[in-house]
Amino acid sequence: MQGLAASCKIVLVMFLLGLGLAGATADSRRRVVSSSPDEPCKKMTLYLHDILYNGVNNTANATAAPVTKPTDLSTSHWSNGTFFGMLVVFDDLVTEGTALPVGDEEPAARAQGFYFYDKKESYNAWFTFSLVFDSKAYKGTLNLMGADLMDDETRDLSIVGGTGDFFMARGIATIRTDATEGYFYFRLKMDIKLYECYV
Amino acid sequence: MQGLAASCKIVLVMFLLGLGLAGATADSRRRVVSSSPDEPCKKMTLYLHDILYNGVNNTANATAAPVTKPTDLSTSHWSNGTFFGMLVVFDDLVTEGTALPVGDEEPAARAQGFYFYDKKESYNAWFTFSLVFDSKAYKGTLNLMGADLMDDETRDLSIVGGTGDFFMARGIATIRTDATEGYFYFRLKMDIKLYECYV
Amino acid sequence: MQGLAASCKIVLVMFLLGLGLAGATADSRRRVVSSSPDEPCKKMTLYLHDILYNGVNNTANATAAPVTKPTDLSTSHWSNGTFFGMLVVFDDLVTEGTALPVGDEEPAARAQGFYFYDKKESYNAWFTFSLVFDSKAYKGTLNLMGADLMDDETRDLSIVGGTGDFFMARGIATIRTDATEGYFYFRLKMDIKLYECYV
Repeated sequence: MQGLAASCKIVLVMFLLGLGLAGATADSRRRVVSSSPDEPCKKMTLYLHDILYNGVNNTANATAAPVTKPTDLSTSHWSNGTFFGMLVVFDDLVTEGTALPVGDEEPAARAQGFYFYDKKESYNAWFTFSLVFDSKAYKGTLNLMGADLMDDETRDLSIVGGTGDFFMARGIATIRTDATEGYFYFRLKMDIKLYECYV
Repeated sequence: MQGLAASCKIVLVMFLLGLGLAGATADSRRRVVSSSPDEPCKKMTLYLHDILYNGVNNTANATAAPVTKPTDLSTSHWSNGTFFGMLVVFDDLVTEGTALPVGDEEPAARAQGFYFYDKKESYNAWFTFSLVFDSKAYKGTLNLMGADLMDDETRDLSIVGGTGDFFMARGIATIRTDATEGYFYFRLKMDIKLYECYV
Repeated sequence: MQGLAASCKIVLVMFLLGLGLAGATADSRRRVVSSSPDEPCKKMTLYLHDILYNGVNNTANATAAPVTKPTDLSTSHWSNGTFFGMLVVFDDLVTEGTALPVGDEEPAARAQGFYFYDKKESYNAWFTFSLVFDSKAYKGTLNLMGADLMDDETRDLSIVGGTGDFFMARGIATIRTDATEGYFYFRLKMDIKLYECYV
C-alpha cells in the first residue's frame, strides 16, 4: 500500500505495571504515545473526493447531497452568497492517489459524515466524519472533526478516536484543497498523523 | 446497579511526579490508562431505545424526530430509498435491561444527539450523541461519535470524552441492533468499554 | 491577555524513552498530562456571544441562523414549544470580557459549529464547535462537543482535540448562561480547562 508509512522512531512509552501478566491476553497491542509533534506514531496521505449532487442528473456519480438550504445570512456580494447554513451529508470515496477508482478498483476508504458552510463573508466550512477502512491494508475507522478554514492553504482537523486497526487513535489531519471543478467536485489532500496508537 | 462492572485488573499506571503533593488536593481521582484492548478500566452494557416520531399520533411516546428530508440520492430499489440525508434529532431513553422503564422507574441515562442516513445503496448511519447520566449510580456524561455501519453485526463508535463521574474518559462503544419494530422503533445494545479513566 | 492563566504546578509527566534524541527535533513541545482534576495544565475564561438571525432585519449583526425548523415533538405548553429539532449554525464572536468587541477590536476567537434543541419538555441543547484562535496570543483551534443541559446552572462539555498552539489538547469546558436578551441573544461564560497539553 504505497503512500502509507509508519514513523515511530522516537516514542513515548508509558510506565507499564504488570507487563508480564498483560502478555498473556489475546490482544497483544500496546499503547504508544509520540514524544513530539514531529514524530507521529503513524502517517499516511489520502485523498477525499466530494462529488456533490447537482439536483438534476448526477445521481449515479454523486456521493454527497445538501440537506439544508443556505440561509439569508450570507452577506457576500457573490450571487450565490457563501452558503451559510447549507449542510451536506456525504459518503465520499477516499483514495491513495489523486485519481478516482476505475472499474472494480477498491477505494482506500470511505469518508462518511457531513460538512456545513458557516461564514457570512467568505467560504468556510466545518467537518465531522469517519474514515471507514475495509481493505486488505486496514479494517476500522478514524473519527475526525474540526474547522475547515478555507482561507488558509492548509488547516488541521482533530482525529479524536479510532476503532479496529486504529483502536483508540488520536492525531491530526492536515487538509489542503487539491482540486475543484465548479461547484460540484472538490478533492482534499489529507495528511493523517497519529500521535496516540496501539501497535 | 446490575449489568455494570469495572474491570481494572491490569492497568497502565503512568509515572507520577509529585505524588505526595497531589494527595493534598480536593479531587483525589487519578488517571488510569488500560494496558491492553482486552482490559478496559470500566465496562457497562446499556440499551438505547429510539422511538421515532411518525408525524401523526405518537407525540407522547416519541423521543426522536426527523429534521431533514431524505434526498433524491438514494438509489435503492426500495420504495422508501435508503433515507440518504435524513437527519434525526433524539433524546432517547437508555436502560440497563432491554425493557423500557415502567411507571416511575428512572432510566439509566438519556442519549441526546442525532444520527443521519448516509448511504445510497443500503441503510447506513452516522451517530454523535451524549449519554447523560443523572441517577443514583452515576452523574455525568459520555460523548460519542462514529459510523454506524448497519451491514455489520456489530460496529464500534468512539467515546471521545466524558464529564462528571466520567471525567476525561475515552473508550469504545460496541453497538448491535437488538430489536426493531417497523420504521419507528429500534433498540441498540451498547457495550461500553473505557480505556482511559479517572478513578 | 487578561483572564488567561496556565496552571501546571503538579503534572503527571510520562516516562520518556529517548528523551535526549527527541531534544534534537524542530518542535520541542512535550506532552503534559494533569495528575488531578484540580490541576489543569492550562486554564482560560472566555465568553461566547450568540446573535441569532431573526429572519427580518439583523443580517448585519447576526452570527447564527436556524437551518431546520422545530418539529411537532415539543410538548411544552409554551406557545413556541421547546424548539425540539431546531438546528442553528453559528460563527460566533468569543471575547475575554463580557462585552462585544467595539470598533476595530479583535475578538479573542470565533466559535464555529452548531447547536440544536433536543428536549420535548424544556429547553435543552447539544453543541459541537471549534474555538478558532487567530490572535497575537494564540493561533490554533480547540474542538468541543457535548450536552448543554440548560436546566443546570453549569454544565460540562468535552474538549476532544486541538490544533496549532493547542496541539492534541483535551479537557473540559464548563459553561454557564451569563446573559440572554429575548430569543435572539445569549452569552455563555466558558471556563476552559485543559488536562492534556503539549508545552
